[in-house]
Amino acid sequence: MAGQRSWTDELSRALDTEMALADRLFRKLKERTGNPSGKGVVRDSYGKGEQIAHEICTEAARALDLDVSTDFAGNLYMTLPGEDRAAPAWFTGSHLDSVPSGGNYDGAAGVVAGLAALAAFRRAGTKLARDVTVVGTRAEEVGSWFTGRHSGHVGSRAALGLFSEEELDSAVRQDTGLSMRRHMEQSGFDPKALFASPPHLAPSRLKGWVELHIEQGPVLEREGYPVGVVTGIRGTVRARDAACIGAYTHSGAVPREYRQDAVIAAADFIGAMDQAWERVLARGGDLVFTVGKLYTDASVHALSKVPGEVRFCIDLRSQDETVLQEMAELVQRHAQAIGKKRRVRFEIGPVSTQHPAVMDATFRRTLMEGCRALGIAAMDIPSGAGHDAAEFAHVGVPAAMIFVRNANGSHNPDEAMEMDDFALATRLLAWFFTTR
Amino acid sequence: MAGQRSWTDELSRALDTEMALADRLFRKLKERTGNPSGKGVVRDSYGKGEQIAHEICTEAARALDLDVSTDFAGNLYMTLPGEDRAAPAWFTGSHLDSVPSGGNYDGAAGVVAGLAALAAFRRAGTKLARDVTVVGTRAEEVGSWFTGRHSGHVGSRAALGLFSEEELDSAVRQDTGLSMRRHMEQSGFDPKALFASPPHLAPSRLKGWVELHIEQGPVLEREGYPVGVVTGIRGTVRARDAACIGAYTHSGAVPREYRQDAVIAAADFIGAMDQAWERVLARGGDLVFTVGKLYTDASVHALSKVPGEVRFCIDLRSQDETVLQEMAELVQRHAQAIGKKRRVRFEIGPVSTQHPAVMDATFRRTLMEGCRALGIAAMDIPSGAGHDAAEFAHVGVPAAMIFVRNANGSHNPDEAMEMDDFALATRLLAWFFTTR
Repeated sequence: MAGQRSWTDELSRALDTEMALADRLFRKLKERTGNPSGKGVVRDSYGKGEQIAHEICTEAARALDLDVSTDFAGNLYMTLPGEDRAAPAWFTGSHLDSVPSGGNYDGAAGVVAGLAALAAFRRAGTKLARDVTVVGTRAEEVGSWFTGRHSGHVGSRAALGLFSEEELDSAVRQDTGLSMRRHMEQSGFDPKALFASPPHLAPSRLKGWVELHIEQGPVLEREGYPVGVVTGIRGTVRARDAACIGAYTHSGAVPREYRQDAVIAAADFIGAMDQAWERVLARGGDLVFTVGKLYTDASVHALSKVPGEVRFCIDLRSQDETVLQEMAELVQRHAQAIGKKRRVRFEIGPVSTQHPAVMDATFRRTLMEGCRALGIAAMDIPSGAGHDAAEFAHVGVPAAMIFVRNANGSHNPDEAMEMDDFALATRLLAWFFTTR
Repeated sequence: MAGQRSWTDELSRALDTEMALADRLFRKLKERTGNPSGKGVVRDSYGKGEQIAHEICTEAARALDLDVSTDFAGNLYMTLPGEDRAAPAWFTGSHLDSVPSGGNYDGAAGVVAGLAALAAFRRAGTKLARDVTVVGTRAEEVGSWFTGRHSGHVGSRAALGLFSEEELDSAVRQDTGLSMRRHMEQSGFDPKALFASPPHLAPSRLKGWVELHIEQGPVLEREGYPVGVVTGIRGTVRARDAACIGAYTHSGAVPREYRQDAVIAAADFIGAMDQAWERVLARGGDLVFTVGKLYTDASVHALSKVPGEVRFCIDLRSQDETVLQEMAELVQRHAQAIGKKRRVRFEIGPVSTQHPAVMDATFRRTLMEGCRALGIAAMDIPSGAGHDAAEFAHVGVPAAMIFVRNANGSHNPDEAMEMDDFALATRLLAWFFTTR
């Protein structure tokens, strides 16, 4: 097996030892980015919380004497030099932001695992064939913070030249009202220089991208595996800022036929999309459909008013491009038909899409070999959530992902990853880098 | 005709003249209770805006040398003495509060009309057979301000002995978080004394209650009548504080069968109630159904989270007690069934009811006679909205209502009552008091 050359008992023991570093980093992240109101963590994309997480990791990387740098978009690169510094390097890591009131592990686990692996290489004196760079990306959870027209995963897309200058100004943070450009500038980065220079990461510089991440669904937990090897990543079709506009009027005095009730129309629309979802699943298709936000206007709504407006968002995901397109068309068709029938106007607003991504077959095979070699019980698993890994795959970089079992899902304060499972996944990650 | 004795040309001219008083009062109300953020008026029940409206009317009543008093709940009584002061008196008026961002006429028009009529009686030297008291009631719109367990129309119910002490503490204002008891006390009234004394208004003291109010639906406008004589008032079944509780989780990574999506379940519930509404109308029944508020939790919800909670309210109204009961049961049945099917829990919370009320047949006939005598085009009309008049009817006081045509509905900032229509309705009201 290719990895046997540099996989030693010393390295194995060093990985155990460095779990203490991982523990410290997770604790520090939780303490310093905890939600002041008490629930979960707040690492806002291009905001204070994300910045603190980057500082914590930078400090740890310096203590390990890694090469530390950032790009114009603020992504953080922490490199352990290999024997051949000119050879295409391994890249690993994940994002350091979170959703509002998110959990401590979503994103951060990938960066902490990378740092723990590099610390173990240092401790064991393992010299790898090529550089390994741990990346802390920016603004992967941008969709939970920025509204307007943007295509998500800002940090990795900026590094790979997939981010467009228009997004800089059209993406606006919901809480501050400021554009992404302003937020990047305020965080000390240089969006101007970003678009005046070639992409920071040319695909040819990368041997591959391997991202460790907690599973965000219940599958590993329910199936009883500590680790999953990801097969592919769902693409998305999203409307962040949809609305249904009717007319406010008295709830008691206006007969049904004169009403323009935004809430009943929106319920009708959601019901119709839910039925379409059921039909796709019934024919064996892959799809999830979510309306994560739905709200009447608190400054106007009342018990005794027919609601004249309701705002909502739409999140559709599938591994199948055709299903995504079909659903995107259905959103418009239902909006039109229900709007007409219910005398209201749907404004779906900007719709952003991310294409599905397939993980590298050779990497997947190697990772499964690693699990057998290390005695880790693992299963193949699709990724329902989007990840930076998808962006690397889109530009032709071979990409893989390792999922860690995690109870209670992610994007919520109750994430529960066991450190024992994390240790196994980190071991697999380190093993992978010793193979070539 | 009974009214001919005291209906004189002088009184008719005086009513025209006193429209200037009405104009001044409406203008003052609008100026002093205008919404600082710009939309409509804010006369919050047992709050600052309602208090200002009461002060404006008190000042006007004193200028007309009426007998002015309040009861322990803060209702305002402004009386023009009649020939026989011991005889049961006419009571008229309406409420002086508004919904949040409400219109200037809903409620206030009834008090202003009463004051204009009394001013005209004074000016014309008309001596009436019995006292006429204009009442400015408190907290008729309480449902838009106070959550918790209460049965609405607090002012009139308190005056008539229909208000219960439990409501004082269980009703809590949504913006301040304070109980109704605290709000009454802060406004200078005496809830303790209220429950230590007999009701302020014994039904035997009242010859009848006649309330002028803008129409809150589009019927008079569409049918082309300036004035409507109300046949009956819809009862209500209301849940102010309903919720659907599921579980927050990742919107991409969790398959349909593991989800507990509160929004899709709530949409299903609203859709089921909407279909039930259609069925009642199809069989000729009377019903309106409204979900005026519907909102996920802004501090937790996100584009990429399955929503774990959505809160909403339910407002059902009918002239038919049986339909109301049927719908109240259906709410519970659908909540149960959809909760089970969708793996969520509906918490419908306290349900308050107001019974339908029938207007006095003799009063209705007399008012229609008045319309013919005065040359006013009028039609019979049901009231979809609840009114203080219903409470008087419930305790056996003969009650009637005069509706004034009003474009754009009420409970919104765009109410549009023409002063010409208001003048006709006020004339009808004054004429009615001269009949007996």
